[in-house]
Amino acid sequence: MQNEYVLRQERVRRRMLEDGVEACLISSNTNIIYLTGTLFAGFVYMDRDVTICFVRRPSGLDLENVVYIRKPEQLPELLAERSVRLPKSIWLEEDEMTHSEWLRISKIFPDAVTSNSTHKIREVRAVKSDFELELVRQGGRKQSEAIMAFPSLFRQGMTDNDFAIEMEREARKRGSLGIVRVFGQSMEIYMGAVLSGENAGTPSVYDFALGGAGLNPTVPVGQNGTPLCEGQTVLVDICGNYNGYHCDQTRVFSVGKTTEKALYAHQVSIEILNEVALMGQEGVACCELYNKAVEIAKRRGLDDCFMGRRQKAGFIGHGIGLVLNELPVLAPKSKMVLQAGMTIAVEPKFVIDGVGAVGNENTYIVHKESAMESVSLAPEEIVELKV
Amino acid sequence: MQNEYVLRQERVRRRMLEDGVEACLISSNTNIIYLTGTLFAGFVYMDRDVTICFVRRPSGLDLENVVYIRKPEQLPELLAERSVRLPKSIWLEEDEMTHSEWLRISKIFPDAVTSNSTHKIREVRAVKSDFELELVRQGGRKQSEAIMAFPSLFRQGMTDNDFAIEMEREARKRGSLGIVRVFGQSMEIYMGAVLSGENAGTPSVYDFALGGAGLNPTVPVGQNGTPLCEGQTVLVDICGNYNGYHCDQTRVFSVGKTTEKALYAHQVSIEILNEVALMGQEGVACCELYNKAVEIAKRRGLDDCFMGRRQKAGFIGHGIGLVLNELPVLAPKSKMVLQAGMTIAVEPKFVIDGVGAVGNENTYIVHKESAMESVSLAPEEIVELKV
Repeated sequence: MQNEYVLRQERVRRRMLEDGVEACLISSNTNIIYLTGTLFAGFVYMDRDVTICFVRRPSGLDLENVVYIRKPEQLPELLAERSVRLPKSIWLEEDEMTHSEWLRISKIFPDAVTSNSTHKIREVRAVKSDFELELVRQGGRKQSEAIMAFPSLFRQGMTDNDFAIEMEREARKRGSLGIVRVFGQSMEIYMGAVLSGENAGTPSVYDFALGGAGLNPTVPVGQNGTPLCEGQTVLVDICGNYNGYHCDQTRVFSVGKTTEKALYAHQVSIEILNEVALMGQEGVACCELYNKAVEIAKRRGLDDCFMGRRQKAGFIGHGIGLVLNELPVLAPKSKMVLQAGMTIAVEPKFVIDGVGAVGNENTYIVHKESAMESVSLAPEEIVELKV
Repeated sequence: MQNEYVLRQERVRRRMLEDGVEACLISSNTNIIYLTGTLFAGFVYMDRDVTICFVRRPSGLDLENVVYIRKPEQLPELLAERSVRLPKSIWLEEDEMTHSEWLRISKIFPDAVTSNSTHKIREVRAVKSDFELELVRQGGRKQSEAIMAFPSLFRQGMTDNDFAIEMEREARKRGSLGIVRVFGQSMEIYMGAVLSGENAGTPSVYDFALGGAGLNPTVPVGQNGTPLCEGQTVLVDICGNYNGYHCDQTRVFSVGKTTEKALYAHQVSIEILNEVALMGQEGVACCELYNKAVEIAKRRGLDDCFMGRRQKAGFIGHGIGLVLNELPVLAPKSKMVLQAGMTIAVEPKFVIDGVGAVGNENTYIVHKESAMESVSLAPEEIVELKV
């Protein structure tokens, strides 16, 4: 496994060289995991020649090139002891580290010009290695199995939250790590959202595809205690994180039979996913996938309820990996182009007044010269819950 | 309820005046909730006269003084339209906002001197109003009831994680919101930790009292799949968040009977809690509580395993509220002094080699002239799980 992480470090190093920067200092959880496979508190320091893990905690870490450290101010001395020349330019994770932390770190490298590495390392992370893709497939399989087991957990008289709790447990029993990592300091998520009835159209505080009022104004997202009544749809967007790599897979259930409009819109969602998956190969611009989805929704007469109703999401999908929202974004102004090895979640969803939301979400792997490969394997039709 | 939030805004405003600062701009989730009772994406702007909620999302928010915005660059114009003079000095949450965000915001107020509000607002938040204390008591009651139900969920042959999953579900069924908010950008927590056997002594990547290896190197904390065998202790530190205010309450179970040493150390933990609760009233320095705990552990011959073994925590408790780790910290160098209305979690814990960890954690309310009031109501003795 060592090679996998050396390879990732090389990919970041190559990006550093392209940017003309001499070194980078990594302190975000996600990038520490990306570069070493293991979360620790501290820093990864990389220049053109060396990679050193400066670790505050835990003690006894089983990694190569570990140097224990109490505080970042020790870095110059510890680098000098190892004959590492202090850099004249350094990448810092400026979209991730706090301003106070930035002030502290930049003082430690007074002769270095600092610049922002966040977006550049996210671009590197967007394209996965074969090893990472296997983890994505494995996570997708586990999440698919969990989702296929969800309908059997439904009992008449449940609220959306009662049902969500049983599904969370099922996912945990199948190995979900629980934690959902999100890029962006203010987005928070428990395990995901279960949306039914009017609540499916409630605008979200976060930049999610759909919202939900949540159970408390301090956590205003997702299920809100809506009773699951006959005819309603139940959109289940419980995120999978089984091995550090997230998988998004939304499926829809209905309490007994649902309305013609809901069934129709769900079929359009499947149509959009099929079209987007067929289009999506290396070289295609992300905005084209967005435009295709919107065009189909419009052609099918459903643009008024596509991606929300009272408040609309401005994207139809997003990269996914060590965080739920990796690059690229499938949005109208996205300038990124698909590359083989990217993993993206596509989520064309519709809000049906008084019924709930419909629409699937699949996680795909982008290939060089063929359609995107779905790792979301649960059947795509709406599953009827027994009443 | 309006008055409660006006009162909180006034407390922050008073602190601003003491600091000689004209305005503050709030964008962290926790402080938005503190000042308005509701989470939204956007900013709370306060100067000496006005409070305005500048909201990006969600649409249709039911709050007073709401102004919808698309981006922070609109702030000067929107303030001018309301005859609000731009400030010459402004507080920003510099320990919470990213460096990039700070650069963007500070450009919007080019004539203002910026300074860091984070610690000062945390000091304000540390002392709760009567309304907040009622929420803390309510959360404590709910969490106590959940904990008392936990032993009945144990089944022979379970691992620590099997047991944890059933306890998480029980807490959720009783209203736990799931999300645990933590101050500090890199600390993450799912719902809490269940520690047993050797795993209880595994050093933590986070600044927690105890650690645990976790189920995956990307989430290296808490239970790790240890089989629960006769004689072991099971330390259950599942955090409670039932209404936005967190409650910490750790209790210990044993699989059948445990060792004399574990029982003894657990009694010492109870002794420490009783002594600390008795001492803790307004005016007492936080470091004194720490010293008292360490002194008792030493006097009872248990200092080698107090607060960890391979890696020791440097505190015995912490403030608690809208985040799990509010001010003050009960640590040797803590300069803060207890004030009536503070809520603190005290967690004297011991690692017993080969057995697990023992020691309770209670959440307390500090009073003016009497002992601290525990809101953690589950019985304190080790509960035997039936084998």
